[in-house]
Amino acid sequence: MRPNRVLERMVAGEKVINGWCAIPSSVSAETMAHQAFDSVTVDMQHGLIDYQCALTMLQAISQTQATPLCRVPWLEPGIIMKMLDAGAYGVICPMVNIPQDAHAFVSACSYAPDGMRSFGPTRAVVYGGADYAQHANRSMLKLAMIETKQAVANMEAIMATPGLSGVYIGPSDLSLSYGYTPKLDHDEPAVLEIIGQICECAKRHGILAGIHCLSPAYAKRMHAEGFDMVTLASDNRLIAAGAAEHIALVRASDAGDGPAGQY
Amino acid sequence: MRPNRVLERMVAGEKVINGWCAIPSSVSAETMAHQAFDSVTVDMQHGLIDYQCALTMLQAISQTQATPLCRVPWLEPGIIMKMLDAGAYGVICPMVNIPQDAHAFVSACSYAPDGMRSFGPTRAVVYGGADYAQHANRSMLKLAMIETKQAVANMEAIMATPGLSGVYIGPSDLSLSYGYTPKLDHDEPAVLEIIGQICECAKRHGILAGIHCLSPAYAKRMHAEGFDMVTLASDNRLIAAGAAEHIALVRASDAGDGPAGQY
Amino acid sequence: MRPNRVLERMVAGEKVINGWCAIPSSVSAETMAHQAFDSVTVDMQHGLIDYQCALTMLQAISQTQATPLCRVPWLEPGIIMKMLDAGAYGVICPMVNIPQDAHAFVSACSYAPDGMRSFGPTRAVVYGGADYAQHANRSMLKLAMIETKQAVANMEAIMATPGLSGVYIGPSDLSLSYGYTPKLDHDEPAVLEIIGQICECAKRHGILAGIHCLSPAYAKRMHAEGFDMVTLASDNRLIAAGAAEHIALVRASDAGDGPAGQY
Amino acid sequence: MRPNRVLERMVAGEKVINGWCAIPSSVSAETMAHQAFDSVTVDMQHGLIDYQCALTMLQAISQTQATPLCRVPWLEPGIIMKMLDAGAYGVICPMVNIPQDAHAFVSACSYAPDGMRSFGPTRAVVYGGADYAQHANRSMLKLAMIETKQAVANMEAIMATPGLSGVYIGPSDLSLSYGYTPKLDHDEPAVLEIIGQICECAKRHGILAGIHCLSPAYAKRMHAEGFDMVTLASDNRLIAAGAAEHIALVRASDAGDGPAGQY
Amino acid sequence: MRPNRVLERMVAGEKVINGWCAIPSSVSAETMAHQAFDSVTVDMQHGLIDYQCALTMLQAISQTQATPLCRVPWLEPGIIMKMLDAGAYGVICPMVNIPQDAHAFVSACSYAPDGMRSFGPTRAVVYGGADYAQHANRSMLKLAMIETKQAVANMEAIMATPGLSGVYIGPSDLSLSYGYTPKLDHDEPAVLEIIGQICECAKRHGILAGIHCLSPAYAKRMHAEGFDMVTLASDNRLIAAGAAEHIALVRASDAGDGPAGQY
Amino acid sequence: MRPNRVLERMVAGEKVINGWCAIPSSVSAETMAHQAFDSVTVDMQHGLIDYQCALTMLQAISQTQATPLCRVPWLEPGIIMKMLDAGAYGVICPMVNIPQDAHAFVSACSYAPDGMRSFGPTRAVVYGGADYAQHANRSMLKLAMIETKQAVANMEAIMATPGLSGVYIGPSDLSLSYGYTPKLDHDEPAVLEIIGQICECAKRHGILAGIHCLSPAYAKRMHAEGFDMVTLASDNRLIAAGAAEHIALVRASDAGDGPAGQY
Repeated sequence: MRPNRVLERMVAGEKVINGWCAIPSSVSAETMAHQAFDSVTVDMQHGLIDYQCALTMLQAISQTQATPLCRVPWLEPGIIMKMLDAGAYGVICPMVNIPQDAHAFVSACSYAPDGMRSFGPTRAVVYGGADYAQHANRSMLKLAMIETKQAVANMEAIMATPGLSGVYIGPSDLSLSYGYTPKLDHDEPAVLEIIGQICECAKRHGILAGIHCLSPAYAKRMHAEGFDMVTLASDNRLIAAGAAEHIALVRASDAGDGPAGQY
Repeated sequence: MRPNRVLERMVAGEKVINGWCAIPSSVSAETMAHQAFDSVTVDMQHGLIDYQCALTMLQAISQTQATPLCRVPWLEPGIIMKMLDAGAYGVICPMVNIPQDAHAFVSACSYAPDGMRSFGPTRAVVYGGADYAQHANRSMLKLAMIETKQAVANMEAIMATPGLSGVYIGPSDLSLSYGYTPKLDHDEPAVLEIIGQICECAKRHGILAGIHCLSPAYAKRMHAEGFDMVTLASDNRLIAAGAAEHIALVRASDAGDGPAGQY
Repeated sequence: MRPNRVLERMVAGEKVINGWCAIPSSVSAETMAHQAFDSVTVDMQHGLIDYQCALTMLQAISQTQATPLCRVPWLEPGIIMKMLDAGAYGVICPMVNIPQDAHAFVSACSYAPDGMRSFGPTRAVVYGGADYAQHANRSMLKLAMIETKQAVANMEAIMATPGLSGVYIGPSDLSLSYGYTPKLDHDEPAVLEIIGQICECAKRHGILAGIHCLSPAYAKRMHAEGFDMVTLASDNRLIAAGAAEHIALVRASDAGDGPAGQY
Repeated sequence: MRPNRVLERMVAGEKVINGWCAIPSSVSAETMAHQAFDSVTVDMQHGLIDYQCALTMLQAISQTQATPLCRVPWLEPGIIMKMLDAGAYGVICPMVNIPQDAHAFVSACSYAPDGMRSFGPTRAVVYGGADYAQHANRSMLKLAMIETKQAVANMEAIMATPGLSGVYIGPSDLSLSYGYTPKLDHDEPAVLEIIGQICECAKRHGILAGIHCLSPAYAKRMHAEGFDMVTLASDNRLIAAGAAEHIALVRASDAGDGPAGQY
Repeated sequence: MRPNRVLERMVAGEKVINGWCAIPSSVSAETMAHQAFDSVTVDMQHGLIDYQCALTMLQAISQTQATPLCRVPWLEPGIIMKMLDAGAYGVICPMVNIPQDAHAFVSACSYAPDGMRSFGPTRAVVYGGADYAQHANRSMLKLAMIETKQAVANMEAIMATPGLSGVYIGPSDLSLSYGYTPKLDHDEPAVLEIIGQICECAKRHGILAGIHCLSPAYAKRMHAEGFDMVTLASDNRLIAAGAAEHIALVRASDAGDGPAGQY
Repeated sequence: MRPNRVLERMVAGEKVINGWCAIPSSVSAETMAHQAFDSVTVDMQHGLIDYQCALTMLQAISQTQATPLCRVPWLEPGIIMKMLDAGAYGVICPMVNIPQDAHAFVSACSYAPDGMRSFGPTRAVVYGGADYAQHANRSMLKLAMIETKQAVANMEAIMATPGLSGVYIGPSDLSLSYGYTPKLDHDEPAVLEIIGQICECAKRHGILAGIHCLSPAYAKRMHAEGFDMVTLASDNRLIAAGAAEHIALVRASDAGDGPAGQY
C-alpha cells in the first residue's frame, strides 16, 4: 500500500505544512498540490465544496507527493466513508466535543474489528494499492477537532480514544466558544494558553497536534510551540489577499512606489 | 442599459486594472470580483474554462462593480456571441493578425447593421437591462490581441477598424513571434520597443490599449507608459506564488525568520 | 452587515412573497430572482438540487434585491451550516415535530453562545459583509416547518423556542398526516382549520408564519388570513403549467380561439 | 430505427408545436418534454447551454414521445456532428445566408456519399437503434434559419439545396436585418410580408417551414398561415412571465382581486 | 402508476439480475440500462456518485425497461427521501444491524401513516405517474443490507419489519465482520453457510433476498440457491476487467495467440 | 520536460496499445489509465465529452504512466490549443483530407516559428515541467486521421507535412467513404487493401501509423501488419459488451452453464 507520507513524517517527528482548499475546483487543487505542501486538505465543511467536486480534487492532488486529506462537514458516517472510499488518506472531523464523538469518528474510519467502516474502497485501492484493506485502519490519518470549551473540558478522554491519530485546533470556533472574537492567529493570551494546553495534552497522549493558521509567521511559531501540522490559510484567501495587495501596489501614488519597484 | 464602467472610465482617460480568471469556478471568480479590480476577465483561451462554467463565473462577477469580460479561445463567431449573450460586457480576441480578422471580430460583436451578431441576448438583458439591444453595439468592449510579428506589421490597418475599442497585448506570444523567450513582464529592449509602438499606434488611432502583466511593478510601469488597462497575472498564479512564498517563509531557518516575523 | 430585507420587512408587518426553486440551475434561479419576489428559496429537500449547484444559485440570486433562502433536506447540522456559510440568509427546516427539533435547528443556525454553528462563513462574509459574525445570529431567518399532527400537538412548545424566527407550513405533509390527500391550496375545512390554528399560534408567540401555496389566489387569501410569507408554487411548476396552457391554446379549435386571440 | 416522429408528421401535413429549452438543466428539459410538445429543442445558440449539459437534456427528453432537436451555436461542423452523435434527431442552424451555407450544413448532417458527417453515432444508436447508420441521412431534420436580408435574397437557391428538410425563421434577427426592432411576434406589415414570402417559398420547394413565436395566439396564426412548425417562447420565458403574472395577482389591491379569485 | 417491474417480477417468483453503477455519469448509466438488466442501481455508497449526478443517471435509466434503484450512503432520512423524490423505485440501505434500523429505513421510504417520508415527489410523479402518491408506499422496493455479525444475530427481528421488501447481502462487509478477507464471490464454507442462513430466513419471512456477486457463474449459483436478485459486479469493474483482459490478449506472444484468434 | 513516452516508444519501434474514453467522467478515465495501456485518449469527437470534463479526465490520467492524448471534434484551432494547454500530450485530428488540413493541424499544435499555437500552457507546464515551452513542438504527438477516399488520394502530400508525427485510421469513415458498411475490424479485402496502403505509405515517409480496432485479435493483427499504435474499442463498449456477455451467462440454461462454471 502507498504509505501515508504525511502521517509517517509526523510520527517520525517532522513538522509538516498542510495546504487548504476552499475553492470547488480540481484546477486550484492541482495548483495547491504542486507547491511544496506535505498534505493538501479538501475542506468540505467551511470550504464551498461537495462530494462530486471533492472527488476530482482528490484525483488532482493524487498526481503529486502531497498526501490528500479532507475535512468533512460534520461527524456523519455517510460522508466520512465516502471520502475515504474516494481516496482521502485522512479525515479532519469538526466538533469532536465528547469522547463518544471521538469513538464514533474513529469507528467510521476503521474497518472491523476496529470500527464500523463499510467495505468498498472503490478509488482508495486505485490510489493506495491492492493491499489497501490490510493496512487502511492504521494508515488513515484521523484528526479530531478540538474547538469548543466542552471539548477542552473533555480533552483527556477524547485524546485517549484508541485509534485516534491526533487533534486539530480550529482557533475561530475555539475563541468564539470562550467568548473571544472568532479569528485565526489569535494573540489573546487566554486563547494562546488554551491552545498550548491542547498541544501539551496531545503530546502527553502520544498523539499528533495540528492547528489552522493564517500567516506564515504564526504557523512557524506554532511549529516552534510543538504543533506537528500547521495549515496555511486557504487557496481562496491567497487569491483575496494577493489580489488586494497587488492592486494596492499598482494604485499606490508615485511617492510610494518604491516597494512596487522592488517587487 | 447598465453602463460599461470599465469602458467609460478608460474612454475618460482613467487607468484601469483588470483581474484574470484561469480557474474554472464561480467561487474564485467571485473572490476576484470582490477585490478592487475595475474589470474581471474570464479567460477561455489559456484559462482552463469552458462555456458552462464561464456562465456561472459571469453571474458571480455580476454581483459586483467589476465589469465582466472574457477572452475567447479563438476568433470563432459561435463562442463570441454565446459569451455576449451570457452577459460578458467585452471580449478580448486572440490572434488578430490581419485587418480582416479585426473586421470579423467586430462584426461578431455587433448587431446589424454594424455586424452579424445574432439577436438573442438571453442573459445580457438580465444583466444589462431591457434597452440592451439599443446600446449594445457601442457598449461592448472589443479588444483585439496584437501578439505576432504579422499583427504588428498590420497594426495600422487593424487599429483603423471601425467599431474596434482597442488592442490588447499578449507579451508571451509577441516575444515568441520575434524569437524571444515567451514570458510576461519582458525586459528585453527590443520587445519593449515593440510594445511601445503598439501603444503609441493605439493612441494615434484614438483607441484603447491594454497589456497582460505579471507583477504590480510592471503593471504600474505600463500604466505610466500609456496603457489604459493592465492585467495582473491570474487567480491561479496568485495561488501558486502565494503558497510558494508562504511555505518558504514557514520553512525558513531561524536565522532567516526575520521577514516572517514581520509578516 | 447587509440587512436581511425579507426578515426586516416581515418583522415590520409587511406581507412578502417568496419564490421557490426546484430546478438545479443558476439560470432559472437568476430568472426567478429578477422577478419581484421578496425572497427566493433554493429547495434542497423536494427540489432536485444539491449543495454544489445550490451554491451557484445563491450567487445568482445575490445579484438582486431578493433575499436568498434555502430549504434543507432534513434537520442535519452539516448541510444547514454549509448553506449558511454559502450565504443563505435563512433556512426553512422540514419536519420540526418536537421542541427538541426546534432547539437543534436554531442551534445549528447560531454561533456560540446561542448555538453550535461552527465558524467559517466563507461566502457569507462576501455576501453579508465583514461584520457578519457579529450580526449573523439575529439576522438569519429560521423557519421551522409545522407539517405533521405531532408538530401541531407540540406547536406551543416549538414556537416558544428562543431564536426561532417563525414557522412555515407544508400543506401537503400536513394534510397527509391528518389523513387527507396531500396537496397544496387545500380547501378541506378541517385542513384550513388547522392552518388557521398554526397561524394564530405563531401570532400569539410573536413569530412569523409562512405557507406554501400554488395559485396566486390562494396565496393572496393566506396573506389576508394573517400569513407573513406566502410561497408561489415553483419554477418547475411555472414551466409545466405555462407550457401546458400555451400548447392547449395553440391546439384549440377555431371555435375556441377567441381567448388565444386575446392573449 | 426509431422514426423521427416530428419529421414524419410534418411531412404528412400535420402542424406541430416545438418546445424550446434555454435553461441548462436536464430537469427543466424533462419537464418540457413531458408536456404535449411534438418536439423539444435544446438551444445552444442563444440558450445558455453547452454540449455537456445538452447531452443530459437529450437523455431527459428521450424518455418521452417528444422528438429531441437542437439549435447549434453556429454553422460549425464540430458541434453539429457532436449533437447528432449525442442523439439529437434534428438540427436548426442559424444564419444560413447563402447557398454554400446550406450545402455545408446539410453535408455536416449527412454521412457519405451525401455529406461529410463523420461516423460514430455513439449515443444516436442507443436512442435510434442498431440500423441508425442506414437511415440517418433521411431521418435527421435539417432546418436552415432564414433570418437576414441576405438570406431572403438567396432563399430560392438556399431552399433548393438537396437534403435540406426546411427552413426556420428567427423573427428577431430578420426584423433587425430589415431595420426594425428585433422581437418575436412582429406585427409590422413589412416583416409579416417577408415572413409570408419565406413560408410560400418553402411550400413551393416542397420543404418545411418553421417559425419562432412568443404567444400561443401568434403561434396559432402562423400555423394558419402555413407554417408546419411553431415554437412557443422558451422554458425561461415561461418562468419569467409566469412568475411576474402571479406576483402581480397576489399584490393586486383588493378592488382588483376579482381576477385572482377566478384563478 | 408505472409498475415497479423488478419488484413485481421478484414477488412473482422470477429471478432477476441487477446492474450496478459506480461511475458518476449518465452516459455509463444509460449504457448499463440498455443491456438486459432487470434493474440498475446507482450506488451512492461505495460508488463514486453524489446526488446531482445520480439524478441524471436516474433520468438516463428511465428511458429503458430497467427499474431504477439506488443504494444510499447511509441510513440517513435526507438522502433516502431525496432519491425517492428523484424517481428511484427502490432503495438499498447499508448496515441495517438492528430492528430499529430497519424500522427507520422503512419509515423514511413510506408516507404517513406508514412512515415519515415527506411529501414532494417532484420527479417521481413524472416517472411514476399522477397517482404516485396513492401507490408509492407499496411500490417502492426497500432492501435492508445484512452485512455484519450483529445484523445476522438480529435478522429474525429485522426481517419481521412491516413494509420491508427484502434483504440484500454485502458479502465483503459480511465476511470482514466474521474475520474473513473482505471480498465478493466468497468460497469460504463458513461464509457460504451464513449467506445460506440469511437467504433461508428471508424465504421464511416471505420477503425477498438479493446478493452482490462478481462473476456470472457465482451469480447463477446464487440464483440457484434461492436468491431473487443477483447483482453483477459494476460498470467500473467491467471496464477494468475487460481492458486488462483485452490488453493481455494483444500482448500475448505468438505462441499464445490462439485464444485471441478465436475471439 | 516529462518525456512523451508513447511517442518515444513508437519512434523506438515498439508497438503500443491505446485506450479510448467515450464516457465523460474522470472516474472511468482513471480506471482506464490504471490498466496497462501505453496511452489513453479522451475522445471529444464521437465520445460524449466536452472540454470541462475532458480536463478532469486528463488530470485523472496524469496520475499514471499512460500518456494522455485526445481526439478533437474537428480541425478547429480553438479546441486543439485548449486541449494542449490542458496537458494533452498529443492530438488525433479527424478528417485530414488535403495537405492544407495537415499543415493547419500541425500549425495549431506548434509554437512559432513552426506554427501558430498561442502561448499559455497553463496546465501543460504543471504536467510537463517548467521547460515545456522549449520542447513542446517536437514532444506533442500529432496524428492526422486518414479516413476518406479524398484523404487516401492525397496521402503522399499529407504525410509529407513537416512536423506531422503520423496518421491514424478511422476504419468506419474510411469504409463508408468507399461505399462499404461503416464498422471497425473490417474484413472486406478492398478495405484491408487500403488500410495496408496507408500503413505502407506512412512507413515510407518515416512517420507513425495507428488504427482504431474493436477486438484484441484484430488489434494484434494490425500490430503484425505494421501499425505502431492500435486502439482497443472504448470504455463504453467494454461496459456494453461485458454486461451483455455476463447477463447471457447468468441467464443461460443449465445445459449451457458449463462455460459459466469455468468463468
